[in-house]
Amino acid sequence: MTDIVIAGLGQTEVGEHWDVSLRELALWALEDAVRDSGGIRPEALYVGNMLAGTLSSQQHLGALIADFAGLRGIEAVTIEAAGASGGAALRQGYLAVKSGIVTSALVVGVEKVTDKIGAGVSAALASSGDSDFESAQGVTPTALAGLIMRRYMHEHGVGLKDFAGFSVNAHANAKTNSRAMYRNAISPEAYVKASMVADPINVFDTAPDADGAAAVLITTADRLPEGFEHPPVRIAASALATEALAVHDRKDPLALTAARISAQRAYAQAGIGPEDIDVFELYDSHTVMAAMSLEAAGFADRGRGWEFARDGNTSREGKIPVSTFGGLKARGNPGGATGVYQAVEIALQLRGEGGANQVPGARWGMAQCLGGSGATAVTHIFLAQE
Amino acid sequence: MTDIVIAGLGQTEVGEHWDVSLRELALWALEDAVRDSGGIRPEALYVGNMLAGTLSSQQHLGALIADFAGLRGIEAVTIEAAGASGGAALRQGYLAVKSGIVTSALVVGVEKVTDKIGAGVSAALASSGDSDFESAQGVTPTALAGLIMRRYMHEHGVGLKDFAGFSVNAHANAKTNSRAMYRNAISPEAYVKASMVADPINVFDTAPDADGAAAVLITTADRLPEGFEHPPVRIAASALATEALAVHDRKDPLALTAARISAQRAYAQAGIGPEDIDVFELYDSHTVMAAMSLEAAGFADRGRGWEFARDGNTSREGKIPVSTFGGLKARGNPGGATGVYQAVEIALQLRGEGGANQVPGARWGMAQCLGGSGATAVTHIFLAQE
Repeated sequence: MTDIVIAGLGQTEVGEHWDVSLRELALWALEDAVRDSGGIRPEALYVGNMLAGTLSSQQHLGALIADFAGLRGIEAVTIEAAGASGGAALRQGYLAVKSGIVTSALVVGVEKVTDKIGAGVSAALASSGDSDFESAQGVTPTALAGLIMRRYMHEHGVGLKDFAGFSVNAHANAKTNSRAMYRNAISPEAYVKASMVADPINVFDTAPDADGAAAVLITTADRLPEGFEHPPVRIAASALATEALAVHDRKDPLALTAARISAQRAYAQAGIGPEDIDVFELYDSHTVMAAMSLEAAGFADRGRGWEFARDGNTSREGKIPVSTFGGLKARGNPGGATGVYQAVEIALQLRGEGGANQVPGARWGMAQCLGGSGATAVTHIFLAQE
Repeated sequence: MTDIVIAGLGQTEVGEHWDVSLRELALWALEDAVRDSGGIRPEALYVGNMLAGTLSSQQHLGALIADFAGLRGIEAVTIEAAGASGGAALRQGYLAVKSGIVTSALVVGVEKVTDKIGAGVSAALASSGDSDFESAQGVTPTALAGLIMRRYMHEHGVGLKDFAGFSVNAHANAKTNSRAMYRNAISPEAYVKASMVADPINVFDTAPDADGAAAVLITTADRLPEGFEHPPVRIAASALATEALAVHDRKDPLALTAARISAQRAYAQAGIGPEDIDVFELYDSHTVMAAMSLEAAGFADRGRGWEFARDGNTSREGKIPVSTFGGLKARGNPGGATGVYQAVEIALQLRGEGGANQVPGARWGMAQCLGGSGATAVTHIFLAQE
């Protein structure tokens, strides 16, 4: 079995696409990925999406997008794992190619939420939690993150201002990403003064819901077309783990257990440790999730993720650059597409095609996405090929 | 690579489960499958579901069900492909085990619709079609089936009464299936007199939406526990294909192209042809779909599927027994669970554990489920092991 590589990349701008349909967004990303691969024709399509059924009255995206993209007849399904849907779709594509049955797979993450922004979107997003015991009480993902952040501040003795590092870094990186939703820098002073959303979470703490689509085409290394124009990027590890869905059911709500398990499995598969990672796209849906992700993945001690970011370790020149194209916070968070954006961004870094956002000399990259306050975590590790 | 086998089976009664939650339904089926396997602990969970997001405000079923079932931590995702979700989930489980990365996978199909029966369910079901060009006009799956059936009657010169064979057979078989929703026989005379739903489709033409859950535990043959109590059933072929989603976009709306392609791929993988199949669980959501399925899978000539059934070939003693436990029509159609019910029923037949519903000497079995008026088709072929 030869290595499995990312051969093609595509991504649309993240933002409010009022004039573009869900299927068109997917098509744009998908066409770019096929073109970028040198024209590999995929045998299967894995769609990461979480909200089209509720917000667009459209399920069955596999057949819909395959048909619209001129791939009528191919294998196509939708993969859903809340906010981790994009990473889970990449995982299914990886397993399919690894099985030897599918030779090349297109993984497309797509989401369209801003048409319905407001209570409808909040209710739809809340369906990623436990509907009988959380959402039924009116608890949304941001409200849950607020509870978790309050507990984190209490247990670890930190204040709101201590979380500023994540959002300041994300916005600084998004400035030069033409696909990012918010390309403005923010200061630590602006961060602490921002309006509250779900105390202690303020608008600069939480990532914006957005529309967007991203795609990667994966295949085996021996199937890359002659004269393939990019350094291929190998998928060195792929792991998905779960944890109790309801936050109140977790033994340790500050631990991100699924993130830790999936990261450990991924390190073991790749034969490396956190010290080898050069760039890490983490799931900064809220700053407290970013802090806990750094801790779960072994980059910071428990309760010290905020400090790691505050001290500049997560900048492009730091020890572990994160959110290098703006992260969920500033590139934007297009739900089920987010995990695929992360893979695209890591692949750009490992190809050396990051432009102004390039992390110099990046060789090992890691992407991790979370669903339902971390109840599902998908971790992929990628390696630049010579 | 050793063979992949079905090691455990579970299924709940199909019907109206007013007092049972979605997660409990899934748990019942899942626990039965694990127990039936002799206690194999699954490494991954693939959930087939299409409507929980819209009808139960609950997505993220992978983490939810894994946790509720005492499998906290394992890999778990939801697979959606409209009515074919259950078959698609089995396909993903198969690919995962085939990859060698997952050693044993639990595939659970679950659906809960009857709490919201009425316009809400119709709208949710319509999201399996093309929302911009079909559902937006008010077209539901049953209305589409009505248009297809009318065209079939016109092109092939047949009348309503000619479709009676499917429903009469399904109800006759359901009588002795303790899990079936409708265990009453119907006569050809009653069939033609039934109330219209979407002319020419009447209530005896269309399968009832229902609640239910089914599960299969799959693993490699060498991992069956010592003293495994059942004849294992090998998954000899697995194939998924798509076709244009909107029926009006299809070159031939009477052909079920995806069903034909997936069946052909499956026959090629198994190294057999339709003449070798001993029992076939087809997707009789509407009698016209059953007729076209027989044609697409190579059991009847184009336009003659109705005749094949009318002449008794689909009964348990006929050439190709179908709907042997009642099919969608009389066992009931629990949406994303249906494809897993089909696999459970075929496995029971090939184990020789079909009881009063046993097809004598069944060795090769086939299950095919369809989504979105046949835009997605999943075909699995199974072989009884000595």
